[in-house]
Amino acid sequence: MPSFKIIASDKKARTGILKASHGEVLTPAFLPVATQATVKTLSNDDLRNLQGSDPCKDKGPTLKERDVSIILANTYHLYLRPGADTIAKLGGLHKFMGWDGPILTDSGGFQVFSLGFGIEHDVGKIVNLYGDNLVMGEMRDVRDMVVRTKLCKVEEEGPTFQSHIDGSVHFFPPEKSVEVQIKLGADLIVALDECTSPLHDYEYTKTSMERSHRWEKRALDAATDNNMFGVIQGGPFEDLRIKSTKFVSENDFFGVGIGGALVSREKMHEILDWIHPHLAPEKPRHLLGIGTVPDIFEAVSRGVDLFDCVEPTRIARHGRLLIRHGNIDINKIEYKEDSKPLDKNCHCYTCQTFSRAYLHHLFRSHELLAYRLATIHNVYFMMQLMKEIREAIKIKTFAKLKKSWLN
Amino acid sequence: MPSFKIIASDKKARTGILKASHGEVLTPAFLPVATQATVKTLSNDDLRNLQGSDPCKDKGPTLKERDVSIILANTYHLYLRPGADTIAKLGGLHKFMGWDGPILTDSGGFQVFSLGFGIEHDVGKIVNLYGDNLVMGEMRDVRDMVVRTKLCKVEEEGPTFQSHIDGSVHFFPPEKSVEVQIKLGADLIVALDECTSPLHDYEYTKTSMERSHRWEKRALDAATDNNMFGVIQGGPFEDLRIKSTKFVSENDFFGVGIGGALVSREKMHEILDWIHPHLAPEKPRHLLGIGTVPDIFEAVSRGVDLFDCVEPTRIARHGRLLIRHGNIDINKIEYKEDSKPLDKNCHCYTCQTFSRAYLHHLFRSHELLAYRLATIHNVYFMMQLMKEIREAIKIKTFAKLKKSWLN
Repeated sequence: MPSFKIIASDKKARTGILKASHGEVLTPAFLPVATQATVKTLSNDDLRNLQGSDPCKDKGPTLKERDVSIILANTYHLYLRPGADTIAKLGGLHKFMGWDGPILTDSGGFQVFSLGFGIEHDVGKIVNLYGDNLVMGEMRDVRDMVVRTKLCKVEEEGPTFQSHIDGSVHFFPPEKSVEVQIKLGADLIVALDECTSPLHDYEYTKTSMERSHRWEKRALDAATDNNMFGVIQGGPFEDLRIKSTKFVSENDFFGVGIGGALVSREKMHEILDWIHPHLAPEKPRHLLGIGTVPDIFEAVSRGVDLFDCVEPTRIARHGRLLIRHGNIDINKIEYKEDSKPLDKNCHCYTCQTFSRAYLHHLFRSHELLAYRLATIHNVYFMMQLMKEIREAIKIKTFAKLKKSWLN
Repeated sequence: MPSFKIIASDKKARTGILKASHGEVLTPAFLPVATQATVKTLSNDDLRNLQGSDPCKDKGPTLKERDVSIILANTYHLYLRPGADTIAKLGGLHKFMGWDGPILTDSGGFQVFSLGFGIEHDVGKIVNLYGDNLVMGEMRDVRDMVVRTKLCKVEEEGPTFQSHIDGSVHFFPPEKSVEVQIKLGADLIVALDECTSPLHDYEYTKTSMERSHRWEKRALDAATDNNMFGVIQGGPFEDLRIKSTKFVSENDFFGVGIGGALVSREKMHEILDWIHPHLAPEKPRHLLGIGTVPDIFEAVSRGVDLFDCVEPTRIARHGRLLIRHGNIDINKIEYKEDSKPLDKNCHCYTCQTFSRAYLHHLFRSHELLAYRLATIHNVYFMMQLMKEIREAIKIKTFAKLKKSWLN
């Protein structure tokens, strides 16, 4: 059974320790996304060793400060391929992918949204043929094409969707989502909800939220451990968001997921402000699917503890490498003969070992090594960001840190 | 200045130490190919650490026995992208790619062949738009298409070719090849030759060989260190092969390259038998571009010391994983729930960490990690094979080892 303890706070921002079956997580934390049982391009060793292998060298900070401590895996994707029963037979997701730290699995609810109204309304993200989550409007080539018809139907008993892989039809009620997540062997699980579209009206959003609450209660009943995150929905409507927050706070969920974050940045801040007074202080709070640097600072300042997002790893594969005030596009010709490391202050394997010129060359040459080296850097960058945030909260300088990063 | 010393021999097979500027190489050795300054999917750390990172653990055999000790890089590819001057400005190829061991660069001559008669005669290998070497007849998709017109012209002064990247025209005489290889900073270099097609007649092969000898002499004159391999040509004709062998043996080359190996396996054995009496025993012998398990055994038994080939890394990326008696196609459905390691006796990171089921899943899901894990295994497999061969030669059981592998 996991536990969560706040160690220090700085106004609404807080830092704590989340203890899960497979280890401890210092919060605020960022969870890299292992969509299909791998954080794209990285192995289990990479996640534990973002500074590169230098046997017997003193590595400085303790492992959990320096490297990845927790990852998120996608229930929808693993349910379809290779299948929950297959992973269970093979000893669970930890053994399958060789990762011995905590894993949080999502519910599959986000994909319900992607395949349903996400397609109809052309909002949110969608999966491509390679299993990548793609933001609408960012589809670049033929591999990203999907059949743009609604692939999901939502009913009281649960959603029914069509697989993006083979078109097979799946009824996926909340109990099934829990069953799959337990088979995967996740440390932390999430109750199934329907993520509504920002284009839905008040009536639909209310109807959907109330149905999601009924699903989430059914998920709680199906759980075998007290390790479930309930999810707040309610779209951009204050009364619905507050009602949903009270629902998750008052029911026997271990943690709070904040869903439906596909709104403008300003609206998201507003939502976080609305719900804050109604959040149970002792429960960890996960802002689902969110993870740019500004979003993280704003959300931490509004009391959020956990984040996950494919953005840092996705942009890495396009050659966009995170630096303190944005990112650089390593494909640009100006880096062709640049002997400097990507970031001279970064201790990741990539920055400690290679020049911008080498990374530029690998991207220009379409060498597969490019995508891994870039991913190592961006994931390490996020880990260091979260470490700085935790430290600032401890010494009550979070506002100053936020200002220094966002200005 | 490199040196080469034979330590032991078993009939014609021999084992020795090649000392180069950046370290020692135990022979017979296999050189993984870093076409574009990376062994595809692998980092410098991977090459040094094929068993995975386990800091402070006793790793058993010394580094050079266990991991990669020498790699081959392609002069043609690096000359075109990022360019020899760029790499020189950045401190040379070693610094550029973070590899501190010996590097042998080829001359570019093989690509002269690929772009010229290789295309006309539809034999040999060709580069695709991604810079992969492809065997003719194995082109699989649109990315592998090249303009099937002859892109190279051979004249006395030297070849002129068109870049496969941007169509630019390059005059590439032997002196230029040496200059580029020196700029790259290779430990060992190769004299420019023209690799003839097996379809060329006696007259053309003879004319070409004699011109290659003149080119190779000019290359020798342009060299600044005694680190050059001359290359034996002469096609499938005994008298020409012997003449070419005498030329390379008698001139001041450090090593002997055996070129034009794109013939049947039986013909290659015949050629090796013809030339053996005429090889200078003190010079290391490199069978250029060859490297399947049977080919290596047959060539070692005929006195060859060095091999390079893209085959083990190329088939890895297609999911073909080397085992003692061939390879397995990990894409096959029979591995979906197979919890065993790929090879229970293999100590590579992949086999020590993951199941066949995980590898199958990664390949089926098109996850980039798949290609790296498979490459680590196949490269480690080749390193272990060469280690077994060296040990067998020392204790004079090579024939027995060969029989046990090939039967």
